[in-house]
Amino acid sequence: MISLADLQRRIEQGELSADASIAQSQEAIAAHEKAIGAFVCRDERPRAATIGPLRGIAVGIKDIIDTADFPTEMGSPIYRGWRPRADAPVVMMLMQAGATIVGKTTTTAFAANDPTATLNPHHHGHTPGGSSSGSAAAVGVGMIPLALGTQTGGSVIRPASFCGAAAIKPTYRLLPTVGVKCFSWTLDTVGLFAAGVADLAHGLSAMTGRGELLPGAAMPAPRIGIVTQDFAGEPEAFGAEALEIARRAAERAGASVRAQKLPEIVAEAWRIHPTVQDFEAQMAFAWEYRENYDAMPPLLRGRLDESKGTTAAAYDAARGIADEARAALAAVFNEVDVLLTFSAPGAAPSGLSSTGDPRFNRLWTLMGVPCVNVPAYVVDGGLPVGVQVIARFGADAGALAAARYVEEALKH
Amino acid sequence: MISLADLQRRIEQGELSADASIAQSQEAIAAHEKAIGAFVCRDERPRAATIGPLRGIAVGIKDIIDTADFPTEMGSPIYRGWRPRADAPVVMMLMQAGATIVGKTTTTAFAANDPTATLNPHHHGHTPGGSSSGSAAAVGVGMIPLALGTQTGGSVIRPASFCGAAAIKPTYRLLPTVGVKCFSWTLDTVGLFAAGVADLAHGLSAMTGRGELLPGAAMPAPRIGIVTQDFAGEPEAFGAEALEIARRAAERAGASVRAQKLPEIVAEAWRIHPTVQDFEAQMAFAWEYRENYDAMPPLLRGRLDESKGTTAAAYDAARGIADEARAALAAVFNEVDVLLTFSAPGAAPSGLSSTGDPRFNRLWTLMGVPCVNVPAYVVDGGLPVGVQVIARFGADAGALAAARYVEEALKH
Repeated sequence: MISLADLQRRIEQGELSADASIAQSQEAIAAHEKAIGAFVCRDERPRAATIGPLRGIAVGIKDIIDTADFPTEMGSPIYRGWRPRADAPVVMMLMQAGATIVGKTTTTAFAANDPTATLNPHHHGHTPGGSSSGSAAAVGVGMIPLALGTQTGGSVIRPASFCGAAAIKPTYRLLPTVGVKCFSWTLDTVGLFAAGVADLAHGLSAMTGRGELLPGAAMPAPRIGIVTQDFAGEPEAFGAEALEIARRAAERAGASVRAQKLPEIVAEAWRIHPTVQDFEAQMAFAWEYRENYDAMPPLLRGRLDESKGTTAAAYDAARGIADEARAALAAVFNEVDVLLTFSAPGAAPSGLSSTGDPRFNRLWTLMGVPCVNVPAYVVDGGLPVGVQVIARFGADAGALAAARYVEEALKH
Repeated sequence: MISLADLQRRIEQGELSADASIAQSQEAIAAHEKAIGAFVCRDERPRAATIGPLRGIAVGIKDIIDTADFPTEMGSPIYRGWRPRADAPVVMMLMQAGATIVGKTTTTAFAANDPTATLNPHHHGHTPGGSSSGSAAAVGVGMIPLALGTQTGGSVIRPASFCGAAAIKPTYRLLPTVGVKCFSWTLDTVGLFAAGVADLAHGLSAMTGRGELLPGAAMPAPRIGIVTQDFAGEPEAFGAEALEIARRAAERAGASVRAQKLPEIVAEAWRIHPTVQDFEAQMAFAWEYRENYDAMPPLLRGRLDESKGTTAAAYDAARGIADEARAALAAVFNEVDVLLTFSAPGAAPSGLSSTGDPRFNRLWTLMGVPCVNVPAYVVDGGLPVGVQVIARFGADAGALAAARYVEEALKH
């Protein structure tokens, strides 16, 4: 993988020109793209900016995010050739920081569950995960140092785990979702993929102008609560193994580690996530569903067919449970700095018929708390498995710092 | 004005065909539009639907809301001729309820402060208010029974007050803002204009499928707290007069009425509303500002110029204050059912150089609570002045019921 922080340092120190840095990504794309298929469209002659902390950084943008200079096709023939007028704010934030948008990355249609043709870079017979398939694969294989994705259930953290990339789903609305195709406005969150945790921190800090997100020199040992999310079912053997490895590494490095129970209302929030998502999706996709029913992606269409009857009363009750659970979860973070849990049930499933299961992600999306995937373990055959570091709402700097601690601990 | 509830009843009882109802609006448009200029573009041959509670209801849509069948120009040459692919969810909600979209209504550019050419129907030398200028004027003059607007500061309640229409700014996110040009994602709220409060209730209920919003047979006397918003400065004489008239009418009708003080943190929230709005607007308009600086509307551009330095820290602090204020305001609603306050400082200002002042509206937008404008008073010369009924977050039915009580009381 290509380290954003490393490129940034070399460019700042004059060891590498911003243009050469972009050219390096272009060469990597030339070497890998044909096999992986992570991009929908690309700028064949991208140019580096001359200023900004992200000058020389090649970025891929998930194709449900509006771009003025590329089509935005949402992974669906309904939007074939569609050209938004404006760049989405998150794209502008990247460009204002000096980044170069080199292309749009594949997305499952409307960021739902119908798979793309993108392959897992670590084993071509497996899914890269979804819905941010192209962004995870492009970073994971080392084509680009940074990519944007989005998560409504588990669409950032899960594919990052499957592709061996670091990723952050920041606090809800730290990054605006304006100009991003909506699935559920209560859940949709823009996230970042990069080679390592420090790279995420540099990328997110440059986008938002928030210096406090940058990695600090000191790395204090965090208090970690291990969460197994029993309400979401059992993990697979490799998922359990990854968490156990990360737990032992963090403990060995000096972190205080304990098993953490979650209040029952939090488990209840896990259960009602689909109610919130489905009710809002009925409205968010109303035009596509009514005007383009036959062209809708089959899995999403089926889900919309089935959830048509979701009532406003059920939705209101679900929203109430989510509010209560957010307050209860906040109290848990008085006892520990971060939670550590599975990023996915296991390694990437074989075949391309499924993008995997978001059951260990969706609670945290509903809670709006920052989540970081840290690659923790590589299965025989090369497939990576990550773990998920979760901090209090708004504590993105804390999530990144603890994730870097775990990442460092895993190196030893 | 044309009463939606009255049309609905006559159509249901077979006294009026849905087509004849639409034709009635077309005739009213032919009679008034030339003088008022409320529409940007119109369907010259609109057709009624045959089913749905809003069949036969002609609706105008503020031109920052995406429509597949009309251009969506945002009041700005930057979007001249722009054709979105999809209808916004709020437009689909109307169409699924059987409404007929007859045209797009004028909006100040990007729903900011640069005025449109639309005239106040009650006095052509005065502003109709903004930013939802066309929607307020079109309903106020009796061209259409229903229109959609949006509010970020005071862009629904204020023009409704100036044009003599009833209007509701529902609870934050009761109506999705997906497909609505963003100014500030924490504040932007879609609202409705109609002839009277019952008309609003029927319209909002049909859009959302929420039967509890419909007017009940009984109209219990509400406990009303009178709020003068001293932190926002003094009202003008006509604004004060309108509130006093409404207060006396409600008291006479049997409501319990008292002066209501607001906690200091709520006043603080009023002060920091611009910080939230400006910080988010920097991101929301990043593309227009960077790529079309010269074509930006001057007042909005000036505001963006001035607020460029708003820091993330100031924004975070403002968000924190807003959260605290929401909790403090919720406690106020344990003592009263609704608050009653000014909808605007006074009657519509003369001339078209300003759309008026949102200082009595912006707090409630930030709090996310439902607000209803009730026309209360007509100044010599014909300009109307409204009052604002405000209920607890999520209590849209309560806000409508109490507003109807005040509206009825004002008739006697």
